[in-house]
Amino acid sequence: MRTTQYLLSTLKETPSDAEVISHQLMLRAGMIRRLASGLYTWLPSGLRVLNKVAAIVREEMNRAGAVEMLMPVVQPSELWHETGRWDKFGPELLRIKDRHDRGFVLGPTHEEVITSVVRNEVSSYKQLPLNLYQIQTKFRDEVRPRFGVMRSREFIMKDAYSFHTSLQSLEQTYEDMYQAYSRVFERMGLDFRAVLADTGAIGGSASHEFHVLADSGEDDIAFSTESDYAANIEMAEAVAPKAQADAPSQDMTLVDTPDAKTIAELVEQFDLNIEQTVKTLLVKAAEGQESTLIALMVRGDHELNEIKAEKLPEVASPLTFATEEEIRELVGAGPGSLGPVNMPLPVIVDRSVAVMSDFGAGANIEDKHYFGINWGRDVALPAVADLRNVKEGDPSPCGKGVLQIKRGIEVGHIFQLGNNYSSKMNATVLNEEGKSTVLEMGCYGIGVSRIVAAAIEQNHDDRGIIWPEAIAPFQVAIIPMNMHKSEAVQSVASKLYDELTAAGIEVIFDDRKERPGVMFADMELLGVPHTVVIGDRSLEKGVVEYKTRREGNKVEIATADMAAQLIEAIKAGA
Amino acid sequence: MRTTQYLLSTLKETPSDAEVISHQLMLRAGMIRRLASGLYTWLPSGLRVLNKVAAIVREEMNRAGAVEMLMPVVQPSELWHETGRWDKFGPELLRIKDRHDRGFVLGPTHEEVITSVVRNEVSSYKQLPLNLYQIQTKFRDEVRPRFGVMRSREFIMKDAYSFHTSLQSLEQTYEDMYQAYSRVFERMGLDFRAVLADTGAIGGSASHEFHVLADSGEDDIAFSTESDYAANIEMAEAVAPKAQADAPSQDMTLVDTPDAKTIAELVEQFDLNIEQTVKTLLVKAAEGQESTLIALMVRGDHELNEIKAEKLPEVASPLTFATEEEIRELVGAGPGSLGPVNMPLPVIVDRSVAVMSDFGAGANIEDKHYFGINWGRDVALPAVADLRNVKEGDPSPCGKGVLQIKRGIEVGHIFQLGNNYSSKMNATVLNEEGKSTVLEMGCYGIGVSRIVAAAIEQNHDDRGIIWPEAIAPFQVAIIPMNMHKSEAVQSVASKLYDELTAAGIEVIFDDRKERPGVMFADMELLGVPHTVVIGDRSLEKGVVEYKTRREGNKVEIATADMAAQLIEAIKAGA
Repeated sequence: MRTTQYLLSTLKETPSDAEVISHQLMLRAGMIRRLASGLYTWLPSGLRVLNKVAAIVREEMNRAGAVEMLMPVVQPSELWHETGRWDKFGPELLRIKDRHDRGFVLGPTHEEVITSVVRNEVSSYKQLPLNLYQIQTKFRDEVRPRFGVMRSREFIMKDAYSFHTSLQSLEQTYEDMYQAYSRVFERMGLDFRAVLADTGAIGGSASHEFHVLADSGEDDIAFSTESDYAANIEMAEAVAPKAQADAPSQDMTLVDTPDAKTIAELVEQFDLNIEQTVKTLLVKAAEGQESTLIALMVRGDHELNEIKAEKLPEVASPLTFATEEEIRELVGAGPGSLGPVNMPLPVIVDRSVAVMSDFGAGANIEDKHYFGINWGRDVALPAVADLRNVKEGDPSPCGKGVLQIKRGIEVGHIFQLGNNYSSKMNATVLNEEGKSTVLEMGCYGIGVSRIVAAAIEQNHDDRGIIWPEAIAPFQVAIIPMNMHKSEAVQSVASKLYDELTAAGIEVIFDDRKERPGVMFADMELLGVPHTVVIGDRSLEKGVVEYKTRREGNKVEIATADMAAQLIEAIKAGA
Repeated sequence: MRTTQYLLSTLKETPSDAEVISHQLMLRAGMIRRLASGLYTWLPSGLRVLNKVAAIVREEMNRAGAVEMLMPVVQPSELWHETGRWDKFGPELLRIKDRHDRGFVLGPTHEEVITSVVRNEVSSYKQLPLNLYQIQTKFRDEVRPRFGVMRSREFIMKDAYSFHTSLQSLEQTYEDMYQAYSRVFERMGLDFRAVLADTGAIGGSASHEFHVLADSGEDDIAFSTESDYAANIEMAEAVAPKAQADAPSQDMTLVDTPDAKTIAELVEQFDLNIEQTVKTLLVKAAEGQESTLIALMVRGDHELNEIKAEKLPEVASPLTFATEEEIRELVGAGPGSLGPVNMPLPVIVDRSVAVMSDFGAGANIEDKHYFGINWGRDVALPAVADLRNVKEGDPSPCGKGVLQIKRGIEVGHIFQLGNNYSSKMNATVLNEEGKSTVLEMGCYGIGVSRIVAAAIEQNHDDRGIIWPEAIAPFQVAIIPMNMHKSEAVQSVASKLYDELTAAGIEVIFDDRKERPGVMFADMELLGVPHTVVIGDRSLEKGVVEYKTRREGNKVEIATADMAAQLIEAIKAGA
């Protein structure tokens, strides 16, 4: 591609409305332009990357036995009524009426449509398992679209849906997709983690998210320093720091603490070790429990994990904290004076609390705490559960190493849905015994357009983007110096361009009448992995200058076999 | 692809709601399924063809120097207000509101969006010409979607838009696109014609449509038997059958014709040659004309071409026929008795009428006609214009051969738009003199999804689809007979499948436990160009059976080098 016949559209200034680096660089490098809130045009350089990402996803899906198809963007509302999601989905689901006043939605996801297709087309177990996917435009009417294509309203997604007559078959395809996703992100050269995830509103029994690690990520993920273990922080199992509590070494004493309403105040005023304190949170109990509230206790330096708490059978869902009034009525003390000793409500303590000794906690008497509490001696050990968020340095639940926490950008998500959708939509087949059986289903998404942004978050410097070879918009940039004045430069540059192009290499040939500095800056901003600079001075020595974007290595290569050497260098990098 | 791991979804019965053969065969061959009125899911076989069509379009657009990008499906309404199309476009433009009650449309076309992109990104003539395209989902809320993907509401289109500082440059790109489109349809193996077209509502100065010839086409196109001349019937120039009128041979006589209100009745009752009669149509005159109505006359066997009539400066636009009341008031006779002699209104006659002699026409007296009328002698020759539709057998306007008329399916359309959009949207650049100049623009569309249907209309028999090699969903079908009982068949079939697949050939391997007849029927219905049948009886002779779908040729090829021979046959066919 010659720059003069291309729409390069680089910007010198960073647009003021772009908060994250990928958004800034995608605008500056001429990859995208905003059309309206959350709606982006992919300029030629952006689309080249998007198409490469899509091609890798397609290849790996095909390799894993998935079959491509294409469903409409516009979906009839009837299907969403069938699954009940018409009511459950919020305003992210854009509802529209056609000229005949019939109801439709702009599809944010396609579980309903694919289940409708499969219930019509598949009637026998012999046709299964089947894994169908598409790479297609989606729309989610985000309340606050942001970060460019990272969280836009219209976006490109790869969504796959698998159908099975047994959970075993579903688990096999799920495992295949796990491996395929890993290959996709490996091939793209991204530093990623597959993490255990909550199945959340979409339901189902197992789920992994694939995260590209980047400081700007919106999710916290925890992973072991010494194994493959990784989990969304919402899901990471918190283990106790030791096997059992130490023997008591202090007597329990009742202490006046009128000015200590929080753990921080308590620790400061009484010079306590925060790891020797316990905080108590009262929440609504599930229906059928012996009391209306239940007390949850975590170590003073730990945070309650609300998702874990909500999943406990004793606790009401959604998780609801007690009001101060309710606390005073049932306990007789305020929320700053609660603890395990003489607590009149059922108690569940975190695993780390269960192994504490000589600790301090509220006395359930206004403005008083007990110090030196020990389980068994002063109060019976209550029920124990995993109640807290993991912290960096916690032992990994896999048994190896300790946990690190990093931020990640979710770029893929795989789910074992089970029969959530198929049962509501009556998607059945005849099994080997000739009996009607409800389909088991999996779903597998990749945010194709989001990957482009995530890759930049992970691969950039102060001069611009540094594309991994596999998804670069161009592999080579040819920068001719003063070409319009030098026939030698023009001839060598054109020859190299023709030779590389003929070899199937994607080249951008900057044939503009621009100063060399402008061309360098644009090609670095655009992140082209390999650059060749051709100028009269080096040509006199029979060489051209070759430079890599990532390492910045500069070498001279002989003009005689420059194309061959470059092709070798590209192969080595890819 | 193994059939057991694929979604084949063929149907034995023809669905009752499918009127045209392509729609019937796309449903029966498992290419598409209806989701809702005008909304179709592309099943795997359909998508394979769609992707091949798109790939050929993309290759030829790139070869012609066009640059790919991608614009959103959802477009802000503001842009449509800028060009005035918000008001002009009918209910085909689906208007929607987002969660913040802002107005958007589902894009049926992207002139507004691309012009907005280019006015922001392009500031200098140095960046031009530029030809930008996308292959993307479009939506038109058709009042009566029909014929499957031939006229659906959601569809895939390639739309390109070029920008220029001169008409000359626009004409050059237009010519390049004309050639690129011709290559696209040639490569797909389709019988097509590029025809002169009306620029219609979209405006502009020149336009060609590309039609795939098929009896089910919705358009009539006229083309010369002896040259490249082809035009949409709306546009085809009608020339007179001879250079000038013959000398009079009859006297003009006034005849009572009380029962002849139409040409047909006149011809029948008075045994006239219909080519010796003239019919008169009164239409509203343009503002500023000397009268409110104007008389248009064509030969009795000819049809008025309303588009040609409407373009006459003397005639009001849109074309409006006079009511009987208006006719009687101004002429003094009814619509069945009108003619040139003593017509009190201005008259324009078709070129063919101008060379008539001894003809019959209404006398502008109720229930009376004149026979034997001759121009000059009985009435002065009025203004002459091209007013009629061409007929088969008319002389071609190119001067060579006569016109044939065939039906076509419009699959491409190229326009010279000029500055219609750019002036309304103030899209300007600085020209070589540093002055602001409004951009000249071209637009170039290809109906990617419609091509799939059009190709089938042109390529089928009573057993199913006959794909042109370039766009077939699979190149080869392997049909193993009783594979599940014969190890020899299984071994040879699997070997051939592996060898062909390794050579990059797209193979469907029918490994279902089905009777051979079912497999044959499915592969013929699906239209796979090359079929290999592998059975124990032929294997005993050391051969497999090879058959082509189009010609039906059957030959035996040795198992020893079957893959090599097949690859040769495919190359010969492609």
